[in-house]
Amino acid sequence: MEAFLLSEWLLRAFLVPADGPVYLRLYKLICRAILEGHLSAGTRLPSTRDLAAELGIARNTVLQVYDQLAEEGYVRAGVGRGTYVEDISQELPGALERPVAAVRADEHAPPSLELSRRGQALLAHLGFSNLQAGAFMPGVPDVREFPLKVWMRIQNRLWRTGPWDLMRYAPAGGYGPLRQSIADYLGSVRSVRGSAKQVVMTTGIHQAVDVTVRLLCDPGDTVWVEEPAYWGVRNLVASAGLKVVPVRVDDEGISPDGDSHRQPPRLIVVAPSHQYPLGMVMSLARRRMLLDYARQTSCWILEDDYDSEFRYGTRPLSSLQGMDESGRVIYAGSFSKTLYPGLRVGFLVAPPALAPAFADAVAELYREGNMVNHAVLDEFLREGHMGSHIRRVRRRYAERRDCLIEAIHRHFGDTLEVVGGDAGLHLVLALPEGVDDEVVVRNALQEGVISRPLSTYYLDRAHARSGLLLGYAGVTPDEIRPAFDVLARVIGRYLQSSHSKGGRHDDTRRTGT
Amino acid sequence: MEAFLLSEWLLRAFLVPADGPVYLRLYKLICRAILEGHLSAGTRLPSTRDLAAELGIARNTVLQVYDQLAEEGYVRAGVGRGTYVEDISQELPGALERPVAAVRADEHAPPSLELSRRGQALLAHLGFSNLQAGAFMPGVPDVREFPLKVWMRIQNRLWRTGPWDLMRYAPAGGYGPLRQSIADYLGSVRSVRGSAKQVVMTTGIHQAVDVTVRLLCDPGDTVWVEEPAYWGVRNLVASAGLKVVPVRVDDEGISPDGDSHRQPPRLIVVAPSHQYPLGMVMSLARRRMLLDYARQTSCWILEDDYDSEFRYGTRPLSSLQGMDESGRVIYAGSFSKTLYPGLRVGFLVAPPALAPAFADAVAELYREGNMVNHAVLDEFLREGHMGSHIRRVRRRYAERRDCLIEAIHRHFGDTLEVVGGDAGLHLVLALPEGVDDEVVVRNALQEGVISRPLSTYYLDRAHARSGLLLGYAGVTPDEIRPAFDVLARVIGRYLQSSHSKGGRHDDTRRTGT
Repeated sequence: MEAFLLSEWLLRAFLVPADGPVYLRLYKLICRAILEGHLSAGTRLPSTRDLAAELGIARNTVLQVYDQLAEEGYVRAGVGRGTYVEDISQELPGALERPVAAVRADEHAPPSLELSRRGQALLAHLGFSNLQAGAFMPGVPDVREFPLKVWMRIQNRLWRTGPWDLMRYAPAGGYGPLRQSIADYLGSVRSVRGSAKQVVMTTGIHQAVDVTVRLLCDPGDTVWVEEPAYWGVRNLVASAGLKVVPVRVDDEGISPDGDSHRQPPRLIVVAPSHQYPLGMVMSLARRRMLLDYARQTSCWILEDDYDSEFRYGTRPLSSLQGMDESGRVIYAGSFSKTLYPGLRVGFLVAPPALAPAFADAVAELYREGNMVNHAVLDEFLREGHMGSHIRRVRRRYAERRDCLIEAIHRHFGDTLEVVGGDAGLHLVLALPEGVDDEVVVRNALQEGVISRPLSTYYLDRAHARSGLLLGYAGVTPDEIRPAFDVLARVIGRYLQSSHSKGGRHDDTRRTGT
Repeated sequence: MEAFLLSEWLLRAFLVPADGPVYLRLYKLICRAILEGHLSAGTRLPSTRDLAAELGIARNTVLQVYDQLAEEGYVRAGVGRGTYVEDISQELPGALERPVAAVRADEHAPPSLELSRRGQALLAHLGFSNLQAGAFMPGVPDVREFPLKVWMRIQNRLWRTGPWDLMRYAPAGGYGPLRQSIADYLGSVRSVRGSAKQVVMTTGIHQAVDVTVRLLCDPGDTVWVEEPAYWGVRNLVASAGLKVVPVRVDDEGISPDGDSHRQPPRLIVVAPSHQYPLGMVMSLARRRMLLDYARQTSCWILEDDYDSEFRYGTRPLSSLQGMDESGRVIYAGSFSKTLYPGLRVGFLVAPPALAPAFADAVAELYREGNMVNHAVLDEFLREGHMGSHIRRVRRRYAERRDCLIEAIHRHFGDTLEVVGGDAGLHLVLALPEGVDDEVVVRNALQEGVISRPLSTYYLDRAHARSGLLLGYAGVTPDEIRPAFDVLARVIGRYLQSSHSKGGRHDDTRRTGT
């Protein structure tokens, strides 16, 4: 509780009729607040003048109370520097009875967990992790490489002007100048075709998926999702009341078969530039097939282009959106990997005919703002800092990737396959089919090394590949080598047991244990 | 297009086999980029050294090209200060043919607008406005009163430390210290009961509503929403696939009748502290009734407490959550009105048994971050700035409210009722039943005065009250008086015509035209 909250609280307490002198009531109330921990050590009390005015009592009364509290060690007063709550955690609490409300709260019988079916499904398949740093957390950049000084310079320049209009709710589509900068950026780097009017600001890929499924799909509709895929996409689609149909990927990307075609989709979600988590680039033939299919069946394609800035040695293919002649593709990206995840700035590019609907729907559903950050980012782009930043971190991530691959080869030679190491912020270390990747991940975590099990990225776990997602972008070579030594030891234990057990374990998995 | 994007773009262009000397190809490509507006005036080109390295060509070649571009007026070069694109907007464009891709984009046949049913419903009932400032935009605070200097000081102190861990994705529940500060704040100011573990950070009321309906309701479930209500709630609920049942409010708040009870809800959304938009406080009896009903029927209550900090003269009632003995209430609030809307920091307080589910669901669905702002806000609260800020703006808003009420009385005496002027950032000026508030709003807007029509906040428009929502918090008395003079003139025109037309217009409305 802050000082001002104390005033409010006391004011309410004083409204309750009670006996005794004002002095004593005030003293008891403040004591209680301190003893019960509502006023923690170091909190500054309101000035005697303010508190007296707020409560409508004499200032002398407040002075008296503060003096007594100081004498008894509840607060300390520095001349001209205010009155602060002392640390009384060593004292015996409970000298005053706990208030009725607090006791009741403790006695709450927990209600049975009556979640919705979609809520239960969401919680049963959680994908997010509270771990966000360290070897080998996948999907995260090295935030320590963020050009903090440049950003702060632009930010302070902007704040000093009093950017009132940027502090309001955002208009439909978001901050105009940034929409223009992003249209320019995407046009040249990703061959995305579209004017600033087609760019709609979001807080990231999650919001882009969410608004797309709400705007284009009704409960019960079918959505094709890559198998395996980023967990976020699958959970958002299901939570919007839609039916997720997993469609396997092969070396060329998403590969619909007879089964898939029996469940024609309203929307197809793909990551053609860098499949997550397997890392392949969708072939030109597959892209043409997908676009033709969408045109013929009038379904939509959501292109998730989450990290294509990070390519090491390979040439980029242009975006799927750039090849789309029929206006069926919604393109989504973010600055989470190029700048930092917590920034929460992303965007989508909608077909011209749909763009106003997307702009309105985002404004209506999420009531966004964050335009001060948008304006800083816009300046950052316009001043050309993005280019040098990306070039710099790309070199750094390439070194780290090389370091990890070298470590893998040193330990395992060519016995374990490295999948999808050409681009992005992570690679997949494939494990033999008999090895349970979840067990490996759990055991490695107990020794302090993070990884994520490939099999959990599949909806159909019975036919999942075993492997480990290893993020290398966020950790230095000095962190990578010892961490992989530990991981290799753990993996080694399971490789041997898998060899000795042979195919039995494998069969169990395939029949769906 | 920035300089670095130019390098990328040129790199790709160079991959396409073509005849002619490198020098000429590079020259033509940069010309085209400038003429087509991809490189706007003032853009800095990459250094000759960088570009030569990127493209794998001789630096001299790049120097030659830059020189010729400078001679022809496309760019200007300052010694040691880089090469910048000139403003050629006065020149004739079209000297070079537009690239194939751009032409194709223009020729797109717009796809038929195949939105989902829920998407169409959302767009048919848009509530948000791109107008966010000026007399009398309701629901917005005066961002100019935000204590910018204090905030910047805390922000810079934090940024200078390199707050890397705050730049990552947020853990479940959000930034821990802020959750504690908010639990303390709510406990004392709003009698909300709950530990930091029950506080889940959100981006505002919209996200709180969204996660609640997903976690607790399945498509097809019924949700009671106050009639009238904030548009955001209704649209979010409908967009989640749920059935909205409007329940009329009377002077004591939400007032379910036989009709409502025939459609028992899974969730009830209310704003008991300050109904939106009518402004009444829910009575104690009604609160008890609602809590009993929720306990007996095992439905949930979402308490939207969006602006209860702003009370003028009236005493606050404690929160509904604070009276809840059965753990059926989810409490939601935000800093949009107390600090600034674009900040996008809000919170919910879940019953203990549900809190982990809410924390996980927010992390899973929205992949939030924004912890740098969370840490600044936490310091802001702990240093006690919130109290002085709220006290200061509350005084200011009270003056503005008085000024607006005075203007209303000056123009209309007691003929038009003022509703809900005791608290919040707006009041409702009731209009006689014959007056179409949407027409008044449109006409006032043409004369530069913003207001919002009360009738549009009703789901059942045939039984809606006519009136104007007038926000006073964001405008000074000097802006309020002349703006209301204009508004009064517009209202006056319709008051006369309503008198002359009598009840006819009224009947039309009531039968649902």
